[in-house]
Amino acid sequence: MTGAFVDGLAALGPADARAAADANGLSDRLTKPRGALGRLETAGAQLAGIAGVSPPPVPEPAVVAVFAGDHGVLAEGVTPWPAEVTAQMVANFCAGGAAINVLARHAGAEVVVVDVGVAATLEPAPGLVLAKVRAGTGNIAVEPAMTAAECRAALDLGASVAAQLVDERGARALITGDMGIGNTTPSAALIAAFTGRPPAEVTGRGTGIDDAMLAGKVAVVERALARLPNGLSAARDPEAVLAELGGLEIAALTGFIVGGAARRVPVLIDGVIAGAALLVAAAFSADVLDYCVPGHRSTEQGASAVLAHLGLEPLLDLNLRLGEGSGACLALPVLQAAAKILREMSTFDAAGVTDKQ
Amino acid sequence: MTGAFVDGLAALGPADARAAADANGLSDRLTKPRGALGRLETAGAQLAGIAGVSPPPVPEPAVVAVFAGDHGVLAEGVTPWPAEVTAQMVANFCAGGAAINVLARHAGAEVVVVDVGVAATLEPAPGLVLAKVRAGTGNIAVEPAMTAAECRAALDLGASVAAQLVDERGARALITGDMGIGNTTPSAALIAAFTGRPPAEVTGRGTGIDDAMLAGKVAVVERALARLPNGLSAARDPEAVLAELGGLEIAALTGFIVGGAARRVPVLIDGVIAGAALLVAAAFSADVLDYCVPGHRSTEQGASAVLAHLGLEPLLDLNLRLGEGSGACLALPVLQAAAKILREMSTFDAAGVTDKQ
Repeated sequence: MTGAFVDGLAALGPADARAAADANGLSDRLTKPRGALGRLETAGAQLAGIAGVSPPPVPEPAVVAVFAGDHGVLAEGVTPWPAEVTAQMVANFCAGGAAINVLARHAGAEVVVVDVGVAATLEPAPGLVLAKVRAGTGNIAVEPAMTAAECRAALDLGASVAAQLVDERGARALITGDMGIGNTTPSAALIAAFTGRPPAEVTGRGTGIDDAMLAGKVAVVERALARLPNGLSAARDPEAVLAELGGLEIAALTGFIVGGAARRVPVLIDGVIAGAALLVAAAFSADVLDYCVPGHRSTEQGASAVLAHLGLEPLLDLNLRLGEGSGACLALPVLQAAAKILREMSTFDAAGVTDKQ
Repeated sequence: MTGAFVDGLAALGPADARAAADANGLSDRLTKPRGALGRLETAGAQLAGIAGVSPPPVPEPAVVAVFAGDHGVLAEGVTPWPAEVTAQMVANFCAGGAAINVLARHAGAEVVVVDVGVAATLEPAPGLVLAKVRAGTGNIAVEPAMTAAECRAALDLGASVAAQLVDERGARALITGDMGIGNTTPSAALIAAFTGRPPAEVTGRGTGIDDAMLAGKVAVVERALARLPNGLSAARDPEAVLAELGGLEIAALTGFIVGGAARRVPVLIDGVIAGAALLVAAAFSADVLDYCVPGHRSTEQGASAVLAHLGLEPLLDLNLRLGEGSGACLALPVLQAAAKILREMSTFDAAGVTDKQ
């Protein structure tokens, strides 16, 4: 098989450990106590490893790709929001009025919206990529989210969006964004499948549902997992599990992460939806982790399960639970600062500052 | 008595609760689930309260004021860094090569350096305010840090710097910065005095000292506290305790916080040094807390003691322990984003998005 996703997987490799070590060495000569810039120093070394050079380039320009899709599992009553809001929010993104638009403008990032699976037919609009694979997933409580071919098409779409943003638009940082009413439910199912944790531990309140609806949501995730064919292993066949549990925007994000990592650019990971996609991507190849920077810790408990499973520490923890790429976008200036520290700070020698005794 | 500090205290008052409530009401109408932007929403409401209007203005332009001073307590061997580094780092700030310069440029903030107590005589330089109150403090293990008159002069200096930055340079956000080899020791002493916690709980490794030096540093803080006159209460006479335990840059920062709060602008608080100053300022008037935003959680344990004592949650937690205003400067874009969310996001009605059922 060929396609953008398989091409991305083939092009993957670990980041450049020598460049990362060089960045750590440089950091130790800068006019500050060693290690005093904490997470900024580890992020700077990661950026050097990604770019293969120390000091690393500043990760800019940045583009947020918001993948949008709908979810058949809404039939189970997992959220008080109607499915029509997905398409309405896509219109809001295109008009520039959503949180991700405000935060992207503030951070100097561009927003691209990709319809990979919205149930409604969308009109063309500036900044909107119409690339629907299917008009919403199946209801994962009772049926597969998508076919194998649809899953592969969504993976390819995400990988090719990443490649195009880097190759054609010159993006040097990619930010994961998502929109899809109900998408914390398939995310929880995927996180349970890929971490092995019980659904109750990784299923959260999403937009803020009450106890009764949460109990129903956990039961839906349990039914979705119970439906998986005997012997199907997330570790051995991540693509089949992804097709079973969906969603289309999560599959596209998985491809986007692989495509960005294959292009050797940092990929800022948002919350629980992107976290589910990252788990799937890491099951395809752990090399993707070298290129991913978790932007923030969402309040959704599944997001923390992802971070713990992959051993990642996010840049921010602001009690966010919005999605869209909002938390990752807020983290972009911190990531850029990490590169600038390495590029612009004086060394002890150059500044004539005495090092500690 | 008159002077900038007393004038600032007299002008203090609580933030505008109605404007903050209006901001919360507006936030609930924006196209996102209620509360989904977490800490950004509480910060936005605080900014509205500070400015007295909803939505609040974006807190810009911002200025970082780095107050520099030396510490007689270095005679006790509390740090491996020589005192000369304070003056060398001031030169580094003026040349633009320190971490705070990089981070301020990145955030679009200006840096002003104020010599309130450097032991060496400094040459005039652009961006450097020469306003030395005294050439370094006394050794707080054995003597007062400064006289009452010197303490008041440092408080006045800080308050007048804040007033001038707002009134004359048009600053609409102030950021606390500090430089002073050894200044985590007087900070620990002040934090112990103002929180009532034992020195061992609030004294940290500063730039990264070893166990033996840390044990000595705790003993020095204990000696400084034991030296305080019987019956002297931090709560009842914060100015006398500040004069006893110092340092000059901490006193200036106390004045700066009061001066900024009196001018109704947000004051972004950096790490443990600024935290000590905030404790002192809050003992003069708890109203200052309405105007202060803790930028980050320093790894220095005294910083967490301050946050817990005052019931504050910082914006960032990046394992920083540099000072200079670095963590507060990194938080500035987050604070500005909070204002822009309220100013620029569409409401459900305006965007034609269906609210939840």
